[in-house]
Amino acid sequence: MRFDRFFVMQPEDAARYARHRGFFAPDAALSCREIGDGNINYVFRVRDEATGQAIIIKQAGETARISDAFKITTDRVRIEYEMLRRYNELAPGLSPKVYDYDDVMHCFAMEDLSHLTIMREALIARRRLPHFVEHITTFLVQTLFYTTDIALDPKEKKALVRRYINPDLCEITEDLVYTEPFTDAKRRNDPFPPNRDWIAREIYGDAALRREVAALKWQFMTEAQALIHGDLHTGSIFVDERETKVIDPEFAFFGPIGYDVGNVVANLMFAWAHAEATIEAEMERSDDLHWLEQTIAGVVDRFQAKFLAAWRKDARDPLAHDEAVARDYVSRIVADSAGVAGLELARRIIGLAHVKDITSIADPERRARAERILLRTAKMLIMRRVAHRDGADFVETLKAARAREDASLASTDGE
Amino acid sequence: MRFDRFFVMQPEDAARYARHRGFFAPDAALSCREIGDGNINYVFRVRDEATGQAIIIKQAGETARISDAFKITTDRVRIEYEMLRRYNELAPGLSPKVYDYDDVMHCFAMEDLSHLTIMREALIARRRLPHFVEHITTFLVQTLFYTTDIALDPKEKKALVRRYINPDLCEITEDLVYTEPFTDAKRRNDPFPPNRDWIAREIYGDAALRREVAALKWQFMTEAQALIHGDLHTGSIFVDERETKVIDPEFAFFGPIGYDVGNVVANLMFAWAHAEATIEAEMERSDDLHWLEQTIAGVVDRFQAKFLAAWRKDARDPLAHDEAVARDYVSRIVADSAGVAGLELARRIIGLAHVKDITSIADPERRARAERILLRTAKMLIMRRVAHRDGADFVETLKAARAREDASLASTDGE
Repeated sequence: MRFDRFFVMQPEDAARYARHRGFFAPDAALSCREIGDGNINYVFRVRDEATGQAIIIKQAGETARISDAFKITTDRVRIEYEMLRRYNELAPGLSPKVYDYDDVMHCFAMEDLSHLTIMREALIARRRLPHFVEHITTFLVQTLFYTTDIALDPKEKKALVRRYINPDLCEITEDLVYTEPFTDAKRRNDPFPPNRDWIAREIYGDAALRREVAALKWQFMTEAQALIHGDLHTGSIFVDERETKVIDPEFAFFGPIGYDVGNVVANLMFAWAHAEATIEAEMERSDDLHWLEQTIAGVVDRFQAKFLAAWRKDARDPLAHDEAVARDYVSRIVADSAGVAGLELARRIIGLAHVKDITSIADPERRARAERILLRTAKMLIMRRVAHRDGADFVETLKAARAREDASLASTDGE
Repeated sequence: MRFDRFFVMQPEDAARYARHRGFFAPDAALSCREIGDGNINYVFRVRDEATGQAIIIKQAGETARISDAFKITTDRVRIEYEMLRRYNELAPGLSPKVYDYDDVMHCFAMEDLSHLTIMREALIARRRLPHFVEHITTFLVQTLFYTTDIALDPKEKKALVRRYINPDLCEITEDLVYTEPFTDAKRRNDPFPPNRDWIAREIYGDAALRREVAALKWQFMTEAQALIHGDLHTGSIFVDERETKVIDPEFAFFGPIGYDVGNVVANLMFAWAHAEATIEAEMERSDDLHWLEQTIAGVVDRFQAKFLAAWRKDARDPLAHDEAVARDYVSRIVADSAGVAGLELARRIIGLAHVKDITSIADPERRARAERILLRTAKMLIMRRVAHRDGADFVETLKAARAREDASLASTDGE
């Protein structure tokens, strides 16, 4: 079979394809496994049995792998490939290297990262990641500040905006993150049954909350602030104790910077809730929570510090040479991040796509409590987002939500 | 000469061109005049001497007509043509009809409006325009609300965003409106000499003002809210006592709605300042000012009312079906409009491009005073833009600025 016309590859095709593209010697003995765990793409690991060397081939189908009825543009793979190349330039070492792009087969080849672990799994396994805060904040500032109008030539930026308009993938976010969790509009939400009534009352029943969500949605749909990753949860990050690699930027487009920062923060909060609910020994739990709280606060604070440093060094707009202007700008990003963190918490609990940090809490009561703590956190983050000025504010909100949940439980017990 | 390769036409070429495109009979006796008064394009009026029928041919050069050194994309004429077609669909009767587009000659043909007057001239001549408020607010709501994500399918909207990215013309606005008047960055500002020191102190010397201008600039550069006209001053509107026709949408792109609304308001304020400075008879002056104040307030209030009515009728986003959400949205537009009105007032007085309403005030002291009143208005509009909630607030700011100017003059007199 040749590769001059698109088809969805099987592992044996991917191995032959990798050889065909010159990644392996013609006589190499190759093995290949499909290792994709997402809903829409195919990911092949092709390995030379003799040398142990491997590469990844990622392919996009013309429909999602979970459903032929779900058509989704293959342009996403072009965007993902180009973004990874940009990441390698803007934030070297913090993404897989990419080798090759094929717009016929809608696939590209990249560095094999199988020595690393998906961050969500690492956090559930209670691994400490001593460099994560520094790595991810460098990644955020390098990829985000340097694609704003503050740092780029405005015409070059507008050309990039045009290049990365991403209607299909934005629609997924608009529906699943910004709309459905607060309205159950398409009846696709999937709340944990014990919390169903609570969610109906506290979320669907809260018009003031929906009003703030609407404002955040219009911002997501209109604000071309920087070239964001668009799906930066802990399932999009490979880690170990030394390395951090961001993957999967197929949702990339020019959107609000807070969308990326807020997703990182929210997904650390899932890990916090997991630890809170599952670690039995008091001392161990408190240690783990403390590390996660420091990590949450560290992401916000180091992001701000590095963003301001990059601004001072490289802002090119004539109005930008003023510390107060820079601080206004970054404060607004932090407030936006709080709002987005709230949205991500809510949608992963109420909406269609859940996270293992929560679903793996075996005890139903503990899981229900963890969810309510995070949903209370979500509401506070959304409603009082401008009150969130630094990392400590985020941690305080999380703890206040736990205190409220415990107080509410205590008062219910007394009924 | 044929028309299969681009060249800048002379009037005799334009007449032959109009015949060539079939607008006139082969044997019609045609006259043609170049009637463009702008800095960048050529506008030809071709007239059949026998029937009196005429059409307009508008052509874009590859450089601006004022300077060969100033290169500017001819894509602007494609945008202008397409926008006028959209206007005819979205707001019928409020723009010239367009007949023909030629992407070789970079020109298009449209309805002759020479029975109408440019609104700036009409206002300077103290004509009352009884339908202007209703016409322009219908135009604004029809062209703006119906190109937001609230009313459009989000994917269709993103396709339009891509289609109307307009880097060259946005750059002009970014420089001339948002940057230079507050920094004199390229030393192109051209303040009226008697106000030079006052402007240096009150504008260039005001860091807090520049900080708010920066926030407005980032908004202009990032917020793809609706397909705005982008240059909606009273020189872009033809009027008489019955008709209103918006022309010249070559600056169109997806930007903040307040940019269009604020430009209309600011240019009515120029007419107010002209009347205030030039009409001798107390009663006549007060009558004219009253009409202009009602017009300013009417634009803001009728815009809001019609925008909300359109929202109630045609909002399609699931989060939009809530009066509070609609009111939040329109309130933010009104605040943005205040900010933009302030910017437009400042840039037309301080910056490179002046308006006749002000330059035609013959008495230098009166002109200087009129400018200072408007610059004081500008500062209040920018600094306290969120305090502007309805039309009366805009008029109050204008009057408060006059009172401040008079008080300051009185205290200087006492020195």
